[in-house]
Amino acid sequence: MRLLFLGDIVGRPGRTAICNALPALITRYGIDFVVINGENAAGGFGITEAILNDVLDAGADCVTLGNHSFDQKDTLVFIERHDRLIRPLNYPKGTPGKGSTLLKARNGADVLVINAMGLVFMPDLNCPFRAVDAELTACALKSGADVILVDFHAEATSEKQAMGLFLDGRASVVVGTHTHTPTADARILPAGTAYMTDAGMCGDYNSVLGMDSDEPINRFLTKIPRSRYEPATGPGTLSGLLVDIDDATGLATRVQPLRQGPCLAPATPEV
Amino acid sequence: MRLLFLGDIVGRPGRTAICNALPALITRYGIDFVVINGENAAGGFGITEAILNDVLDAGADCVTLGNHSFDQKDTLVFIERHDRLIRPLNYPKGTPGKGSTLLKARNGADVLVINAMGLVFMPDLNCPFRAVDAELTACALKSGADVILVDFHAEATSEKQAMGLFLDGRASVVVGTHTHTPTADARILPAGTAYMTDAGMCGDYNSVLGMDSDEPINRFLTKIPRSRYEPATGPGTLSGLLVDIDDATGLATRVQPLRQGPCLAPATPEV
Amino acid sequence: MRLLFLGDIVGRPGRTAICNALPALITRYGIDFVVINGENAAGGFGITEAILNDVLDAGADCVTLGNHSFDQKDTLVFIERHDRLIRPLNYPKGTPGKGSTLLKARNGADVLVINAMGLVFMPDLNCPFRAVDAELTACALKSGADVILVDFHAEATSEKQAMGLFLDGRASVVVGTHTHTPTADARILPAGTAYMTDAGMCGDYNSVLGMDSDEPINRFLTKIPRSRYEPATGPGTLSGLLVDIDDATGLATRVQPLRQGPCLAPATPEV
Amino acid sequence: MRLLFLGDIVGRPGRTAICNALPALITRYGIDFVVINGENAAGGFGITEAILNDVLDAGADCVTLGNHSFDQKDTLVFIERHDRLIRPLNYPKGTPGKGSTLLKARNGADVLVINAMGLVFMPDLNCPFRAVDAELTACALKSGADVILVDFHAEATSEKQAMGLFLDGRASVVVGTHTHTPTADARILPAGTAYMTDAGMCGDYNSVLGMDSDEPINRFLTKIPRSRYEPATGPGTLSGLLVDIDDATGLATRVQPLRQGPCLAPATPEV
Ligand SMILES: [Fe+2]
Ligand SMILES: [Fe+2]
Ligand SMILES: [Fe+2]
Ligand SMILES: [Fe+2]
Ligand SMILES: [Fe+2]
Ligand SMILES: [Fe+2]
Ligand SMILES: [Fe+2]
Ligand SMILES: [Fe+2]
Repeated sequence: MRLLFLGDIVGRPGRTAICNALPALITRYGIDFVVINGENAAGGFGITEAILNDVLDAGADCVTLGNHSFDQKDTLVFIERHDRLIRPLNYPKGTPGKGSTLLKARNGADVLVINAMGLVFMPDLNCPFRAVDAELTACALKSGADVILVDFHAEATSEKQAMGLFLDGRASVVVGTHTHTPTADARILPAGTAYMTDAGMCGDYNSVLGMDSDEPINRFLTKIPRSRYEPATGPGTLSGLLVDIDDATGLATRVQPLRQGPCLAPATPEV
Repeated sequence: MRLLFLGDIVGRPGRTAICNALPALITRYGIDFVVINGENAAGGFGITEAILNDVLDAGADCVTLGNHSFDQKDTLVFIERHDRLIRPLNYPKGTPGKGSTLLKARNGADVLVINAMGLVFMPDLNCPFRAVDAELTACALKSGADVILVDFHAEATSEKQAMGLFLDGRASVVVGTHTHTPTADARILPAGTAYMTDAGMCGDYNSVLGMDSDEPINRFLTKIPRSRYEPATGPGTLSGLLVDIDDATGLATRVQPLRQGPCLAPATPEV
Repeated sequence: MRLLFLGDIVGRPGRTAICNALPALITRYGIDFVVINGENAAGGFGITEAILNDVLDAGADCVTLGNHSFDQKDTLVFIERHDRLIRPLNYPKGTPGKGSTLLKARNGADVLVINAMGLVFMPDLNCPFRAVDAELTACALKSGADVILVDFHAEATSEKQAMGLFLDGRASVVVGTHTHTPTADARILPAGTAYMTDAGMCGDYNSVLGMDSDEPINRFLTKIPRSRYEPATGPGTLSGLLVDIDDATGLATRVQPLRQGPCLAPATPEV
Repeated sequence: MRLLFLGDIVGRPGRTAICNALPALITRYGIDFVVINGENAAGGFGITEAILNDVLDAGADCVTLGNHSFDQKDTLVFIERHDRLIRPLNYPKGTPGKGSTLLKARNGADVLVINAMGLVFMPDLNCPFRAVDAELTACALKSGADVILVDFHAEATSEKQAMGLFLDGRASVVVGTHTHTPTADARILPAGTAYMTDAGMCGDYNSVLGMDSDEPINRFLTKIPRSRYEPATGPGTLSGLLVDIDDATGLATRVQPLRQGPCLAPATPEV
């Protein structure tokens, strides 16, 4: 089967690019399941229910989050109503929502999506290595799910690469998010897990992390905020990866980066 | 003219890959000037004078450093003897060595190489934005140098992208290092500067940042060191970017990622 | 001569305690000069011009700031109009206001007040050690000023103690702020500088740093903000130190902690 | 009953001061139980079994640790043999040793000692608030233990004050360690828990955190290590607090700071 993952949606440029391009991508590539990180979809800060519904309508099967999960206060409420929206697994007990979800793909496969957050230079959540390990023990590849995708939302490349190798052979895909910058290291790890340190973002790359660059540059220079961060307003570029998965093993047979839009060198997977 | 930049050399796999491959790359692509970040060349921690000489002999014109600049104590001494080895510009006054160097390329062009270090999640050096700005004011593109390359050694993608846009049009190339993971965003910024958030490393990618993955995974799981970090020992992969520069403007006309080796999907520039 | 320093004013409880108690303290102890850190005077976040004037009217000769210097945007403007309000010296060039001020004490002595901010776990300003060193070189004790007080606004006790010993003999007083918790280590260092790692705060100590404890405890437990931080509303306690200075040398002859209010064990200096 | 807590032992000056003074203190004040943080007892880094035995022989009933728990590798082994040595509770499952211990005081009371570590600016352990809460639920004051002392080893005063108020009424004593600087805020919180943000250290205070100041000052100035950190070698000062506890409630009736030695203003509790 074939799975598409797209990185953090940043503001309107990201949303528009997804709504415009995703349906055709699903058709063209025969994609069975789509996961998108949506933690910056609402003006750069969190996600609203209306935006979530738009992204699901465009073809996403599951939306993941990160350190911006609850920037929109409503999310604490509506996340409980949605099976297709998850937040990092390693939030403390009692946090609204859930950190993983088991969903049906278009081809009938059971797909387990897990969202976890790194700790290096990040909020003090529970240990993501142990949290994901427990999840994969409870619902293992092939016995509990046909396909397992882990969105590891983390800052440090060390923590992301360690997670990839830690899970190698136990997940179909381990993909990083949060840096909003696609890495060029998509590959299949030795034991069969598709891996990419960061999927990049869906947004305007002529920016700082998808946000207009004036204020970030101002803060680096002066250390004093002048205004709020606002999403850049140029056309969005999509970034992520397309993974082919062996139905027998649940492991990856091919991973191809996908980048489509005006800012980055395109990466067009083979059909 | 044509310039090659390669990311952090990590241990023997990185050194061997460079010594084996660099001479042929220079010939094949007609490269006029080569800059390599060498901060992890000596077993992952700093650089020795012998290794520096090997890298220069293999064809590097300039070696840059980063937060590991002085892991080898000798570097505090021998850096003063070498015009082709620089450390971040924004170390405090009185630090041995220098943060920029003006060198002749094979085609006769004067190339200014600047090394700076980010502050986000990094040591507390002077402001890199102001330090580089002062340098570019003192030695501007075309009036002071034909070509200017900035190696911005930083953790956060935000700080690197802000630096790229801050310098756009004033440097030929702004390339990031430190995360040891190549990004897939090599491009020419609106005002003509070639930019890539991180060049990646030259080392064994079947690892955590080029180091054997056992100890990093152990520390993430247990929070207690069990042994020292050691470079992984598999064959190295080179990663960096090839930039074509307009002799008239000193700005970039083409930027192509280069990845060559067993671990990553290859990126082979056009000749 | 005799100098009083009081730590960070936090909200109304701190302001009220100062307005009520400071005039009597000045009289009772024959204080020649009063410095107060005011970075949290306005609801916990920065200072307004009206509050500054109230604090000066109550008897403060100089108000210092810290990482909350510009939480109230107006401060960027009115700080330029006030000789008695300073912000950390090691902000970048071009920052409104100044980092030191030379003022007349009631006994006619020239008092240099310097405000600097630490870098450990704090914003990335310029090196405070070098910034203060340059200031003390330009305006040395006895040649440039009769008395020199340094308010070092920093998180880490290591950085504060290093600053104290670094300046020992060159300043009359080095006192820390920012942790909002008085330390019990007020003493005269070997070369004559009065030192206290942290002066504590002027506010309601039945709290977390002067702020109502519900929201801080909520965030430690859940990692999700529920409301804004608000100052606690119980009666304020003053905390600081009283220093006697030898007019001939500018160095300290006695340092006594002062704590007055309902929450902490009182420290009542001898008259 | 009466309990003494002393802060982090730093190197030989701290050990000597404890061995010389503790027996007389126990006699003079009729102390029933002594807890000492020993994380820096061995040259500033961890503790050896020989040193542990010396400290126990001098009169300590329990020794706690912190971020330096396992700096001496042997500690991973010998901690399993000692009921009186504990490390932070919130290390991951499987960590050698334990995070709490129930011991008999000289007066026959059952004393539960809990050691926990903060997360702000500290290693990424499990949530200390939830870990201590679970412990106090399992072994509550009066039902599970006559007296409960929590050593909360943390950097940020905010986290320590939040812990104090979070546990107020559920523990006899909550005392902070790690900053090596005594705070002047020892008091009984509203619901009866004795609290002090930091107990200070037992070591040479003419130093940076008990370590010779040359190298710390060098690193702040140059950002380049010149030598290892070594304990300062002047005579040690003891610092901590003496708490009287109501046998009926297990809550505190009086808390008095204790400081004894050449560097700090003495704090001599009433007998
Ligand atoms: Fe994001
Ligand atoms: Fe994020
Ligand atoms: Fe590196
Ligand atoms: Fe680095
Ligand atoms: Fe403050
Ligand atoms: Fe502050
Ligand atoms: Fe310690
Ligand atoms: Fe510690």
